[in-house]
Amino acid sequence: MLEVILLGCGGSMPLPNRYLSAALIQYKGRKILIDCGEGTQVSMREIKSGFKTLDLICLTHLHGDHINGLPGLLATVGNSGRTEPILIIGPTGTEKIWEGIKMLVPYLPFAVEVLEKPLEVDSLTLSYYDEEIQLTTLDLDHSSFCLGYRFDVKRQPKFDVEKAVANQVPKHLWNTLQKQTNQVCFENKVYTKEMVLGSSRQGIRVSFVTDTRPIATISQFIEKSDLFICEGTYGDEADLDRAKAHKHMTFSEAANLAKQGQVKQLLLTHFGVALTEPEQYLDQVTTIFKNTKLGEDQLRVELNFALNHE
Amino acid sequence: MLEVILLGCGGSMPLPNRYLSAALIQYKGRKILIDCGEGTQVSMREIKSGFKTLDLICLTHLHGDHINGLPGLLATVGNSGRTEPILIIGPTGTEKIWEGIKMLVPYLPFAVEVLEKPLEVDSLTLSYYDEEIQLTTLDLDHSSFCLGYRFDVKRQPKFDVEKAVANQVPKHLWNTLQKQTNQVCFENKVYTKEMVLGSSRQGIRVSFVTDTRPIATISQFIEKSDLFICEGTYGDEADLDRAKAHKHMTFSEAANLAKQGQVKQLLLTHFGVALTEPEQYLDQVTTIFKNTKLGEDQLRVELNFALNHE
Repeated sequence: MLEVILLGCGGSMPLPNRYLSAALIQYKGRKILIDCGEGTQVSMREIKSGFKTLDLICLTHLHGDHINGLPGLLATVGNSGRTEPILIIGPTGTEKIWEGIKMLVPYLPFAVEVLEKPLEVDSLTLSYYDEEIQLTTLDLDHSSFCLGYRFDVKRQPKFDVEKAVANQVPKHLWNTLQKQTNQVCFENKVYTKEMVLGSSRQGIRVSFVTDTRPIATISQFIEKSDLFICEGTYGDEADLDRAKAHKHMTFSEAANLAKQGQVKQLLLTHFGVALTEPEQYLDQVTTIFKNTKLGEDQLRVELNFALNHE
Repeated sequence: MLEVILLGCGGSMPLPNRYLSAALIQYKGRKILIDCGEGTQVSMREIKSGFKTLDLICLTHLHGDHINGLPGLLATVGNSGRTEPILIIGPTGTEKIWEGIKMLVPYLPFAVEVLEKPLEVDSLTLSYYDEEIQLTTLDLDHSSFCLGYRFDVKRQPKFDVEKAVANQVPKHLWNTLQKQTNQVCFENKVYTKEMVLGSSRQGIRVSFVTDTRPIATISQFIEKSDLFICEGTYGDEADLDRAKAHKHMTFSEAANLAKQGQVKQLLLTHFGVALTEPEQYLDQVTTIFKNTKLGEDQLRVELNFALNHE
């Protein structure tokens, strides 16, 4: 089971009743954080998630409402006793931002590695014991370099006894090949994972798109996501010109992307400061894309592997 | 009337129900902020104080729980439409911290001036129309360079008609000398403020001391403060060794300082994360110094000039 927790659903400025847009992915006891505005660590504390198992921080872009929580969060991760490195991925400019943050928290007890897109990362595979998460980015259209993120949990095929026997894999290697390694050399013969595993199984796809205009490349990027988290800075269609001017989206534009991308569920977030009652606009959005939910701070979505592929 | 608002009363880490220790001084429509941990701007929003009239930020020291709210706060001040410079005062190292913050918020619409103590400031006079606030700092004893702050509102003496007449000050200069300038030259003669003003009147003194051990110099520094805001990281006397090790104070140590300094009111703040029920220890403190209050987020203290000096 993969869990996505929307830590906040606000844009621009942190408010007393609304944290800034950020999301936490929890999988097999490890954590990935997407964006980190001021207050993100407090929202993490509210859900009692702990800080030590945060391995990766993905920054969509470098505007303050998406990064100003980093110094405090990293200090708190340091206080949690973590000593393993943390990886920060972000758009062009992330290296420079990290230089600034380092000056605010020079005493971290762990190393921070920075991968700056597009120079160094387009698709990256993270290992989670016997499963993997593939991370892919997309260039968005905002007022600064901005990345969309897609997380694909690659579900490992089931162990196939008949196949293992047919491939003459020694029995004592079955467990190693299924759970630990891609290949084993034994008595001068190479045995691979594929020799003991069955056909591919559907994984889980989560995509996160904020802040941006609804450009054409997004619908393919998010295609068939189990969960599509998307910015909806404006609820009212009358704000379309404003959305265009500030390189943001209206709820309807986000819903149209969800429809084109045939996603299973749309979760709207990054509400503008003036959007105090997003529920006013929900009806109009569900006529475009039915399975739309409005973001709420600490809203939790559980995603499981599809049963029909067990 | 001078107003002091405790924006938060926590130490180390921002918590869901407790902002980090910071205080706002409001005087004649202008603001001074002391410390700025993560979330300080949210607490300021809760009290609906506005951001545009923030002129001065005093940093006690450069640990994250006292400075990590600066990038977000400054961005929000920028969004408020401010274009006048802001002054940041802090201990040795503040210039370097400012270099880091600038990299996070490179787009501020106002200049930031930094005064780094002890090189450049020991006592500073801030003008507030016809009154002045004198700001004085004291070196404290913490695990990094740390400053105590004292704010003295210098109350101007009353206008004294008899004195003005006796000093033969022309009537049309009375208002100018009382409210606008220290001296005027008219028909080759110099007239000074002192020629029209009566005897001195008692002002208002506020002192802010955190984070530190209770060193001897503090009691004189805070002498006769109308309000003494002091750290109380530990409530339980059993934590004295811990307080010594981490260069903090217990409630009793703060109360003893208040007593020695003959202050009018002690407000405890900067409660440690483990100190979830500070009220447990209030009784023991009031036996040392009676007029002790426990800090609460958004607690407001109004201070007026003493009536007997009207």
